[in-house]
Amino acid sequence: MNIFVVGLGLIGGSMALDIKAAYNNLVIYGIDNNEHHLNRALEIGFVDKKASFDDLERADIVILAIPVNAAVNVISRVLDVVNDNAVVFDVGSTKYLICEKVKDHPKRRNFLAAHPIAGTEFSGPDAAVENLFKGKTNIVCEVEKTAFKFQEKAMQLFSDMGMRIRYMDPKSHDKHIAYVSHLSHISSFMLGKTVIEKERNERDIFDMAGSGFESTVRLAKSSPEMWTPIFEQNKENVIETLEEYIENLTQFKELMKKDDFNSIHSEMENTNRIKEILKGITTNNK
Amino acid sequence: MNIFVVGLGLIGGSMALDIKAAYNNLVIYGIDNNEHHLNRALEIGFVDKKASFDDLERADIVILAIPVNAAVNVISRVLDVVNDNAVVFDVGSTKYLICEKVKDHPKRRNFLAAHPIAGTEFSGPDAAVENLFKGKTNIVCEVEKTAFKFQEKAMQLFSDMGMRIRYMDPKSHDKHIAYVSHLSHISSFMLGKTVIEKERNERDIFDMAGSGFESTVRLAKSSPEMWTPIFEQNKENVIETLEEYIENLTQFKELMKKDDFNSIHSEMENTNRIKEILKGITTNNK
Repeated sequence: MNIFVVGLGLIGGSMALDIKAAYNNLVIYGIDNNEHHLNRALEIGFVDKKASFDDLERADIVILAIPVNAAVNVISRVLDVVNDNAVVFDVGSTKYLICEKVKDHPKRRNFLAAHPIAGTEFSGPDAAVENLFKGKTNIVCEVEKTAFKFQEKAMQLFSDMGMRIRYMDPKSHDKHIAYVSHLSHISSFMLGKTVIEKERNERDIFDMAGSGFESTVRLAKSSPEMWTPIFEQNKENVIETLEEYIENLTQFKELMKKDDFNSIHSEMENTNRIKEILKGITTNNK
Repeated sequence: MNIFVVGLGLIGGSMALDIKAAYNNLVIYGIDNNEHHLNRALEIGFVDKKASFDDLERADIVILAIPVNAAVNVISRVLDVVNDNAVVFDVGSTKYLICEKVKDHPKRRNFLAAHPIAGTEFSGPDAAVENLFKGKTNIVCEVEKTAFKFQEKAMQLFSDMGMRIRYMDPKSHDKHIAYVSHLSHISSFMLGKTVIEKERNERDIFDMAGSGFESTVRLAKSSPEMWTPIFEQNKENVIETLEEYIENLTQFKELMKKDDFNSIHSEMENTNRIKEILKGITTNNK
């Protein structure tokens, strides 16, 4: 079996590692426009051979693991080149635009739109880790538009990686993921910015920061190359979540200004039920 | 040695556990107005005996580990009761008000104002864990106002728990801690609120949440009883940080509205240097 991984970063690399561990008798080809990443992937060993887009005609499975703007740019070209028995899936954090892009492609049925909810704040081939997807949710969009035999092929791979599948339409995916993922990244980036700006000349102050700050600001380490196009593609939904978030923060601030600390207490108490919700996440995703 | 722990929650309980592990020949007395917490502390075993405020006259060391409003309320009474050779320290997340409160007390020199930067999002006696303070920073304010022999006594205890000490005046403490701790809690609570509000009728959506959301929203599990008085006592500083945070979020939103994704990229890239800063925290505090 010939598996082509396009984009040898955290997600592509981690998938390649899991696939290598699960199967014999396969060759993993790597495609990346960053020559350094390609070489690192070969050194680390999750890729067997370098390849180019023209080689995709020999692919059985193509994993498109590049930033979402690049994915939308190249998906038609990838589908043009692959043979009729290949399945191509992406792993991007936005789904509407890529589904729109491929909807009239003659090989639409070879494509599966996926979003594995997994990752870390790190990026590049050295960020690849085994078992990243174990117990995680993989959201598959417009599954009915993928031929059954290709669904099966991709699902087998996802199942081998330990993922559970949830089906969703692309619009709903993009709307909800804005709340539970994209907004978290902005809140974290802007928290980091606010603190760095203020404490610019007092680096020692960060000695005062504990695990709480570390946890809330962790996502501010994420890759701008990956996240800028996500925010761009999901602009309307992200702006909506940001407006609601800003409104809630402003209201909290106004309560403080009015010395209404009873309401401040209630706000926090009501939000405490995130405990129960997170318990669900922890059980499912770890 | 008689050690009195007033407030048998996460911090008081964890300190009691470490002290019990480090010393023989001591009795730990517990004071808590929550009878259930007192009994749990005895069951868990980090407290040897129940006590009341009148018993404090027998104390060698008093640890005041109650919410900051309660601490300000009782500190004078505690200092009134203790004998001349006792040292009393608090562990609160605000330092200005308690220092103001005790400044003219005849036993001011028996008091040490401390803030160990350690904790989890959990609370109550069952949240107590061993080694919570190991490698953590403990901020001590107005150390010159504490008699040297009492400084020594307290520092020995902090040292046994593995903490390193930083000295700071109470006003600076409250200003900076607003950025690196208090703001994180509000950003997390309001993130939780925003998502819960939106997804009220779609509980399944939380299946889509991954470790990123979990990390940024973790602090929203924190105790309102502990945090409301912190925000109240540090009102001016917290409002200032909130205003700057809201301004940064609003600016980010405006950049998105204007489709200025180059600037969005720069914003994230500039904030990425939080990596280096966090590396410092991780090295120091873990």
